[in-house]
Amino acid sequence: MSNNKQILLAKRPEGTPDKDTFKIVETEIKKPGDGEILIRTIYVSVDPYMRGRMVDAPSYVPPYQLDDVLGGGAIGEVVESKSQRFAQGDIVIGSYGWQSYYKAKEDEVRKIDKDIAPISTHLGILGMPGLTAYFGLLDIGKPKEGETVVISGAAGAVGSVVGQIAKIKGARVIGIAGTDEKNQYLKEELHFDEAINYKTTSNLQEDIAKACPNGVDVYFDNVGGEISDAVHANLNKYARISICGAISSYNLEGEDIGPRIQTTLIKKSVLMQGFTLGDFADRFAEGSQALAQWLQEDKLKYEETIKEGFDNIPEAFLDLFKGNNIGKLLVKV
Amino acid sequence: MSNNKQILLAKRPEGTPDKDTFKIVETEIKKPGDGEILIRTIYVSVDPYMRGRMVDAPSYVPPYQLDDVLGGGAIGEVVESKSQRFAQGDIVIGSYGWQSYYKAKEDEVRKIDKDIAPISTHLGILGMPGLTAYFGLLDIGKPKEGETVVISGAAGAVGSVVGQIAKIKGARVIGIAGTDEKNQYLKEELHFDEAINYKTTSNLQEDIAKACPNGVDVYFDNVGGEISDAVHANLNKYARISICGAISSYNLEGEDIGPRIQTTLIKKSVLMQGFTLGDFADRFAEGSQALAQWLQEDKLKYEETIKEGFDNIPEAFLDLFKGNNIGKLLVKV
Repeated sequence: MSNNKQILLAKRPEGTPDKDTFKIVETEIKKPGDGEILIRTIYVSVDPYMRGRMVDAPSYVPPYQLDDVLGGGAIGEVVESKSQRFAQGDIVIGSYGWQSYYKAKEDEVRKIDKDIAPISTHLGILGMPGLTAYFGLLDIGKPKEGETVVISGAAGAVGSVVGQIAKIKGARVIGIAGTDEKNQYLKEELHFDEAINYKTTSNLQEDIAKACPNGVDVYFDNVGGEISDAVHANLNKYARISICGAISSYNLEGEDIGPRIQTTLIKKSVLMQGFTLGDFADRFAEGSQALAQWLQEDKLKYEETIKEGFDNIPEAFLDLFKGNNIGKLLVKV
Repeated sequence: MSNNKQILLAKRPEGTPDKDTFKIVETEIKKPGDGEILIRTIYVSVDPYMRGRMVDAPSYVPPYQLDDVLGGGAIGEVVESKSQRFAQGDIVIGSYGWQSYYKAKEDEVRKIDKDIAPISTHLGILGMPGLTAYFGLLDIGKPKEGETVVISGAAGAVGSVVGQIAKIKGARVIGIAGTDEKNQYLKEELHFDEAINYKTTSNLQEDIAKACPNGVDVYFDNVGGEISDAVHANLNKYARISICGAISSYNLEGEDIGPRIQTTLIKKSVLMQGFTLGDFADRFAEGSQALAQWLQEDKLKYEETIKEGFDNIPEAFLDLFKGNNIGKLLVKV
């Protein structure tokens, strides 16, 4: 058995993280004690929210500490078990992050069903991104049949699920993404009604107005910044904005400055609600069940961008901010 | 009988309105026809939202037209009635605005009860500002006992009622206003727990932090701008922001630029809801009844700033933006 490879936070990034943000080390693999298991990692997840945890400031999750392993979603195989609850060969999911082996206490991880769908989907459409889409759209956005739903970051792990659930609910769905390839995927594979390339448009606000002749009733926002400013100008009375992410601001060195939103909210009686998935922790079973059922009924499709090789995890994470991936971005270790 | 004096919109203001924005004219008093009444105005209301209607842009109420009478809340006495529903001497309230006489159709105005409180209160604590406070605080802010409620524009017609309702509900209440006299009134007369003078503080964000050792759970926002930026920095997880007004921005000639709010909303799972009173039109009876009862039980106090003289209406309106008035600002014609 080889050593345990781990990726640590080497220094806190200012602006865009780079390779110096991370440090790869090798440590000895620890033997599981009673009630513990040893996991060999198969997939690790790279997610935009991890950028926020690299800053030493209070947020909804504690910041990473320097020289600690970067925590996050991971799937692995149990290679040794001293727990009654797990057998060798079981596939488990946890939040233990970027390391090739992990000695887990039995309540730190849970077993996943290998038969519903490929195991990697538990880090994507059946996991955190899928649940985020489900609750953020249905509990905050509350799209009604015939309403118009706009999604920024529409081709990402969350946005692509949001749009499909909105279609299931009978809404007209418009995605905003940054490449023609993504937009082709949104329209042809996921059946979005329209898709707008914010990088090539000469006037995003007008393009949104054209794509939404009845205005915008629900805006699912993964991005923030100028893209959102352009959507806000097209909101209908009683619109709902579900604020899931603001990836345009995560690497800013200064403040995120733009038009203040208050007057728009008053004029249109708009609701804006920020959330994180943890707000819905007591309803994960409901969400997982709905997503799994839609997947089995072929009402949901998903795409994964899977990179290979443990050492490529930092690069995959940095790719998130370049906006090139479609669907869920994973690394196969 | 004299002529009917009317105040018209002479030109659309850019930036802060001034005397040239308005034009006083005299016209003949019209005779009421069948089902109509003639009203002699006693009080007219001047309100911040009227600034928005002076701009030719879509909003929740249609813009004023050039050379039209400036509409808004008014109270008067019926001097001639050709309606079964009104008798001479009845006191009525309507939205017919800045004119000394008005020939109304019988469904344009409603009779008010002279016995509950002085009739002027129907333009203030028992009228639009009181109802705005009631629904904006209770339906959006939803303060719980022991929570902390912060109010900007706290000494105004709406803010002063919001704070008192929040106290009735058992919250800790902090007001932000712009003179020491107002703050003394908030603390000594209305029993706010703390009041902060945003004009004399050297660091508003820190002052709010000190006044709110447990953070801010509900923010009732009449003002927007930098005052709100400072409150946003002190929000608690699951805070609610009720966006009632943004008076700091109404006279801006350019865009209202400042920190974008999205990241704050995500980190703290904050709800922000813009509203106007019309959103609650089907529940006015409930609100009016609650306010009248609290008033009779001495749980609500109110202050009015009453200017005298029809010709002084424009000046009274302009005073709103100087921030000198306490409570409801009215003109007695």
